[in-house]
Amino acid sequence: MSLPKKILEEKLRKIVEEDVGHGDITTSHIVSRGTTVDAQVMAKEKGKIAGLEEATVLAESFGLKTKPLAADGQKVQEKTLILQLEGDAATLLSIERTLLNLLSRMSGIATATNLLVERIRKAGYQTRVASTRKVAPGLAYFDKKAVMIGGGDSHRWGLDDMILIKDNHVVIAGGIAEAVERVRKNVSFSKKIEVETARLDDVLEAAQSGVDIVMLDNFTPKQVKEAVRLLRKRQLRAKLLVEASGGITEHNILEYAAAGVDIVSLGEITHSARALDVSLEITKVKKPHR
Amino acid sequence: MSLPKKILEEKLRKIVEEDVGHGDITTSHIVSRGTTVDAQVMAKEKGKIAGLEEATVLAESFGLKTKPLAADGQKVQEKTLILQLEGDAATLLSIERTLLNLLSRMSGIATATNLLVERIRKAGYQTRVASTRKVAPGLAYFDKKAVMIGGGDSHRWGLDDMILIKDNHVVIAGGIAEAVERVRKNVSFSKKIEVETARLDDVLEAAQSGVDIVMLDNFTPKQVKEAVRLLRKRQLRAKLLVEASGGITEHNILEYAAAGVDIVSLGEITHSARALDVSLEITKVKKPHR
Amino acid sequence: MSLPKKILEEKLRKIVEEDVGHGDITTSHIVSRGTTVDAQVMAKEKGKIAGLEEATVLAESFGLKTKPLAADGQKVQEKTLILQLEGDAATLLSIERTLLNLLSRMSGIATATNLLVERIRKAGYQTRVASTRKVAPGLAYFDKKAVMIGGGDSHRWGLDDMILIKDNHVVIAGGIAEAVERVRKNVSFSKKIEVETARLDDVLEAAQSGVDIVMLDNFTPKQVKEAVRLLRKRQLRAKLLVEASGGITEHNILEYAAAGVDIVSLGEITHSARALDVSLEITKVKKPHR
Amino acid sequence: MSLPKKILEEKLRKIVEEDVGHGDITTSHIVSRGTTVDAQVMAKEKGKIAGLEEATVLAESFGLKTKPLAADGQKVQEKTLILQLEGDAATLLSIERTLLNLLSRMSGIATATNLLVERIRKAGYQTRVASTRKVAPGLAYFDKKAVMIGGGDSHRWGLDDMILIKDNHVVIAGGIAEAVERVRKNVSFSKKIEVETARLDDVLEAAQSGVDIVMLDNFTPKQVKEAVRLLRKRQLRAKLLVEASGGITEHNILEYAAAGVDIVSLGEITHSARALDVSLEITKVKKPHR
Amino acid sequence: MSLPKKILEEKLRKIVEEDVGHGDITTSHIVSRGTTVDAQVMAKEKGKIAGLEEATVLAESFGLKTKPLAADGQKVQEKTLILQLEGDAATLLSIERTLLNLLSRMSGIATATNLLVERIRKAGYQTRVASTRKVAPGLAYFDKKAVMIGGGDSHRWGLDDMILIKDNHVVIAGGIAEAVERVRKNVSFSKKIEVETARLDDVLEAAQSGVDIVMLDNFTPKQVKEAVRLLRKRQLRAKLLVEASGGITEHNILEYAAAGVDIVSLGEITHSARALDVSLEITKVKKPHR
Amino acid sequence: MSLPKKILEEKLRKIVEEDVGHGDITTSHIVSRGTTVDAQVMAKEKGKIAGLEEATVLAESFGLKTKPLAADGQKVQEKTLILQLEGDAATLLSIERTLLNLLSRMSGIATATNLLVERIRKAGYQTRVASTRKVAPGLAYFDKKAVMIGGGDSHRWGLDDMILIKDNHVVIAGGIAEAVERVRKNVSFSKKIEVETARLDDVLEAAQSGVDIVMLDNFTPKQVKEAVRLLRKRQLRAKLLVEASGGITEHNILEYAAAGVDIVSLGEITHSARALDVSLEITKVKKPHR
Repeated sequence: MSLPKKILEEKLRKIVEEDVGHGDITTSHIVSRGTTVDAQVMAKEKGKIAGLEEATVLAESFGLKTKPLAADGQKVQEKTLILQLEGDAATLLSIERTLLNLLSRMSGIATATNLLVERIRKAGYQTRVASTRKVAPGLAYFDKKAVMIGGGDSHRWGLDDMILIKDNHVVIAGGIAEAVERVRKNVSFSKKIEVETARLDDVLEAAQSGVDIVMLDNFTPKQVKEAVRLLRKRQLRAKLLVEASGGITEHNILEYAAAGVDIVSLGEITHSARALDVSLEITKVKKPHR
Repeated sequence: MSLPKKILEEKLRKIVEEDVGHGDITTSHIVSRGTTVDAQVMAKEKGKIAGLEEATVLAESFGLKTKPLAADGQKVQEKTLILQLEGDAATLLSIERTLLNLLSRMSGIATATNLLVERIRKAGYQTRVASTRKVAPGLAYFDKKAVMIGGGDSHRWGLDDMILIKDNHVVIAGGIAEAVERVRKNVSFSKKIEVETARLDDVLEAAQSGVDIVMLDNFTPKQVKEAVRLLRKRQLRAKLLVEASGGITEHNILEYAAAGVDIVSLGEITHSARALDVSLEITKVKKPHR
Repeated sequence: MSLPKKILEEKLRKIVEEDVGHGDITTSHIVSRGTTVDAQVMAKEKGKIAGLEEATVLAESFGLKTKPLAADGQKVQEKTLILQLEGDAATLLSIERTLLNLLSRMSGIATATNLLVERIRKAGYQTRVASTRKVAPGLAYFDKKAVMIGGGDSHRWGLDDMILIKDNHVVIAGGIAEAVERVRKNVSFSKKIEVETARLDDVLEAAQSGVDIVMLDNFTPKQVKEAVRLLRKRQLRAKLLVEASGGITEHNILEYAAAGVDIVSLGEITHSARALDVSLEITKVKKPHR
Repeated sequence: MSLPKKILEEKLRKIVEEDVGHGDITTSHIVSRGTTVDAQVMAKEKGKIAGLEEATVLAESFGLKTKPLAADGQKVQEKTLILQLEGDAATLLSIERTLLNLLSRMSGIATATNLLVERIRKAGYQTRVASTRKVAPGLAYFDKKAVMIGGGDSHRWGLDDMILIKDNHVVIAGGIAEAVERVRKNVSFSKKIEVETARLDDVLEAAQSGVDIVMLDNFTPKQVKEAVRLLRKRQLRAKLLVEASGGITEHNILEYAAAGVDIVSLGEITHSARALDVSLEITKVKKPHR
Repeated sequence: MSLPKKILEEKLRKIVEEDVGHGDITTSHIVSRGTTVDAQVMAKEKGKIAGLEEATVLAESFGLKTKPLAADGQKVQEKTLILQLEGDAATLLSIERTLLNLLSRMSGIATATNLLVERIRKAGYQTRVASTRKVAPGLAYFDKKAVMIGGGDSHRWGLDDMILIKDNHVVIAGGIAEAVERVRKNVSFSKKIEVETARLDDVLEAAQSGVDIVMLDNFTPKQVKEAVRLLRKRQLRAKLLVEASGGITEHNILEYAAAGVDIVSLGEITHSARALDVSLEITKVKKPHR
Repeated sequence: MSLPKKILEEKLRKIVEEDVGHGDITTSHIVSRGTTVDAQVMAKEKGKIAGLEEATVLAESFGLKTKPLAADGQKVQEKTLILQLEGDAATLLSIERTLLNLLSRMSGIATATNLLVERIRKAGYQTRVASTRKVAPGLAYFDKKAVMIGGGDSHRWGLDDMILIKDNHVVIAGGIAEAVERVRKNVSFSKKIEVETARLDDVLEAAQSGVDIVMLDNFTPKQVKEAVRLLRKRQLRAKLLVEASGGITEHNILEYAAAGVDIVSLGEITHSARALDVSLEITKVKKPHR
């Protein structure tokens, strides 16, 4: 999943601009015009790398040369060099923090996601690990791309994506069936429909209304199991996907997988992921010729 | 610390726009024009609230009425109502997630910061807890404001703020004294100057160069203590502030405070803070009159 | 389908800004400050009205009062008043053309769409009439919203919506099955998958690959019929939606509907729709009090 | 008429961005990184080509190589190749639709304009065919440039261009002479002044007020002839340009030309022009080396 | 000349945003939430006021109440109160400098322009005083509006306004007549054409080519007189406007007026005008109720 | 002090865009596609050059080649060539005025600043000459960078820079000591604090409150001297910087320097500086090959 470079460049430019303000005053006063450097970026702890594409596009669009030493999605051990940079020293110092912040946030999310995905795969399940819209404000693209790199599912990118009828929609519509009917009447054939449910009755009502996906919100693993059993009994299970969401942690995630859902979704992997420790070191300074 | 409302509104509009894309298709299909609702926002776990100003400005700039039930900086217990909202149902549903994401991120950062600040205060130290520029990309304003609400110090907002001579600047300049001298020659009188140091020798070199603040980077508490002792011995301690940074955690933070620094700074409180669990519930639906 | 007002206002402001440039020099030189007017907007020919929401939001966000005399989606006869406006004369004259351009374009698209939808409904078919991404550059939101108001289906809003594997994707992947497989491996569960096909063999290959929708591109009605027959024979028809696209006109659209597809899509209704004739007349001038 | 490339690139980037949203999900899942393609753009029907400059700047600014096979303003027969493209496959697929939408809209407008221009020239008249401000919202630059390529006159680009006193201005000023006088008092010497008139009396009043151009709005050819005769009689004709507008179609345009006006203007050529059918085909796929 | 308020607000918001950066830290730390103030703006020296509309729109769009005590275009004596403001104290302090900078720059330009206009009028000439495009970068709207308020002529607002064939265009075209001919062939009827000339021969060549305006660039008053005489002799004077530009100062401007030109234009009034001294004083502080 | 090129390019693009509007119509009609030129920029009067970096980045980002013949900060005599340009003729003509406006404004500011700096240095003082926030609206970056090139001090770049407690802040806080205390309680350690004072008493109050800088606002040189004497007497002088502001001109600036302040600041050098006369001449026209 990648934005066209030209589009991504503009997103990244705005982030740097916010940090630079009226200028990098430290660098401006210290670095002589024409000084160039070689530098390298290191993952200081082990994890799954994400954000290398963004880091590369950022650096190149600011005129630096790049040489990736790893790939997005690659698992690395601690103290692994992942990117080499070369070019104007002042520019590099001015974008260093933005570049590292992108890499550390995205790698942190990918690492957290991957941990859960692997736990599930190793236990022999095919359950998908999905993110939610609980991202850092304005950073859905980066956060969800990192989830995908970690082996997770992006879920909806935004409100114009799949139909997701949540509790508050149901309250306003006056019931699940009524809400689904309102949607069906006008929604484009190109959209899937998912409904959030809070109780067993809701699950059946949703399934019978013909939606594509039912979300079990804040169900315990046991309740999930019961819901899946009921759906099977009514021969509704095969026609839809079942997603469990709410209260899922790394500790109980296998119980949810075992309960027979297709998807588990967690806000944690985006809104509370630990950043991966990443640093940049200058390895060579080349003074300008006079 | 607050941006003028008109400026903040534009920042928030862009975040909503990113989420809404071509439109909130679920809400558009379900909510009848003219439907209004009452809703309330609840902190589901205990913590220090931040982001209420942003949430309020966001909601009001989209035409909703707001009534804060708590204040930024207030500590709340779990299940505390913090904000009431009233107005157009479709609008409320379209901004709900952005509003909650702001509140949960900012409150999470404020809570994490406050934990450290209180630990230090309770132990009887005046040491400041500062953030770094390791924020979510593009979110320095929100992240650092939350740090301040949590009782922390914003540190630099961006690269045009204080002079901070880091390791890579020193490498390029060829030494701390040389770097400081280059800065001094031209920098505005309105700027403070800080230098990052990695060894005891550096600390003295920096202090003797007459900077305002010395940062001890990745020093152990013991090394910090030694550095402070040396500065005192040379009668340099009173003339400058000392900041410890790198490797500081909630577990060892008191040792750093005890070692005699003025400031401890941590990336953790911004780049890896757990979001506070916050939710929105519709309490009343008012159908449009026909 | 509606954007939150605050988001729509910004889109509309940019359009006015493009027209106004350094200022409406005619109006600035003629209209005395404080002059207010009443005005009315008339549909001069019959058609299906669309764009009233946009016109209203535009006028109100520029400080004018509005009173709609019709509703989006309403069919009107020629010379029907559809909107009253009141307020600052200079402002009204400066946004008049933009307001009318929105109304006439959107109503033209809604009218053209509705003509086809009604033809199909009257003939007793349930076939959907869908738009394509062949919109005026940058105007997908307005064009596709108008299609929906006309009773049509928006189809994909943009490239981040449903998966649509087109001829050029198939060429690159080296075959339909291969392309579908690549998508399936990583795509979010929240996305539907559609494949464009050019021949009968392709249709079967696509259907067997388990996609949600098959598009028959540039098939004659007869070929469509044959494709549908084959799908039924292989018991694949019920599992997917069938869309016909390319070469469909108001003249042959019933043949396509009769051939048994679920959806017909046409670029014409967006890229070549005739604008509806709409005009604005000032009905009262109120001079400023001195 | 061309914007500097750097300015045009930004306009085009925004259009692509609107279409791409969070990313071209189909392409991202199918096209392997490093895959490049050759492609060609074909005019599938005959017409006058416009938008090649925009298509070229768009493609090149996204990193593709281009080779135009035709020129803006050239008349082509059906099935004429007009542009070759080469480069990154994913990028090309992501901008394909925007590129084609620009070409088909602009070529459609140029073709419609040119039809009228040629009809007039063949009949031996020098009458100019001008557009109006009835363009697709926000697309004045592209629409009017296409009119010029078609041999037409751009007329005003926006409200800050020539003074054009319309019916509603006259209503507010309280008469044509009064409106013209208000303008004359302050307007820059660099601006021409045109007045819209609805009756013969208005025409004379406008001409006597010394404006540069008189627009005859919704006059029949016969009324136009009479107006021109009167202007000649009063020796006012030579001092001004006469524009006919409103109700002009391809069927009666020669009657208007024959009636002796300098300019005929029509909204049709921009707000209701049929798009020219243009398509893009990939001719070669080059897999990445591994 | 005024932009629609909504458009102007956005221009002004961006200017404030540039100044505010991450926030007005002084005000944020000092002013208690809810504090409101009364304030007044005073012209400390005499001059012609301009920018009051901008100041008012700025203040109101940030939520302050305004009461103008003077009008744009009014001449005031030193120490004249020109604007009252009331509202949120923090907001007022954050926009104070931007508001004053607009007023002082625009009033300075209006005052400088008006000085020249009055000198000419008092001497009995009707010669117009026009600005050039030598404005502060990006501030054409504000600078030229101020010129108009000062009684001057805006001249071209930008490059899409009138045709102005300058020396460098002539060099490229290979002569004045050739340049004019190239323009005439395609330019819209809505545009005037002006040519810059450097010698007497050029003046005649330009006049004979049928342009609307001839600019005499860097002619002495004596040379201007000779040029005007020649134009009269050849009966070309009445058909065109004559503009003198280059080397005109307040000292020799009457000589140029006397030499018989219609327009004199000067960069000085925009690029080097002295700002008018304007200040803001808080007259009342109203503490928030607790 | 330099913004990263990519960031600066965007600022400059917006300025050109404002000037170009719908296009450079003169150039579009005259210059044949493919024509290239050589050109040179000349300082027509003597002064200190600033803006060459901006001019170079502007020209290169629009695709022209540049060769600086001088350097920012260099003093040149009248008629000195300072920059060579080469490339597409149409592009060059479209950016010419913006490029010259940047150079002439920035060089004008640098020259005015330098005049004062040299006067002070020649008289043997080390007093800094600082600018204020009285810049052209929105142009702080360019204006203050020019001040620095002229040897001056940028002072605060904006409201998020140093704390500067002004008269109006003091009024609201109810006193200098109270205002300083409010700031101290929460402000980041990274910020300096300055207070504006109007009387001798204020100066002492400010100094005793422990601020970093005291600004003497509208003090006569004699009053300044007295203030400095008092500060020395109380042994407060060494602990802080003293800035004089208000009423300082080139005529009395030495008296202020002599009075013993560290900094003098003036709005004049930014809000009222005379632009330096700079022009661009095309030296060679290269026709396109056919």
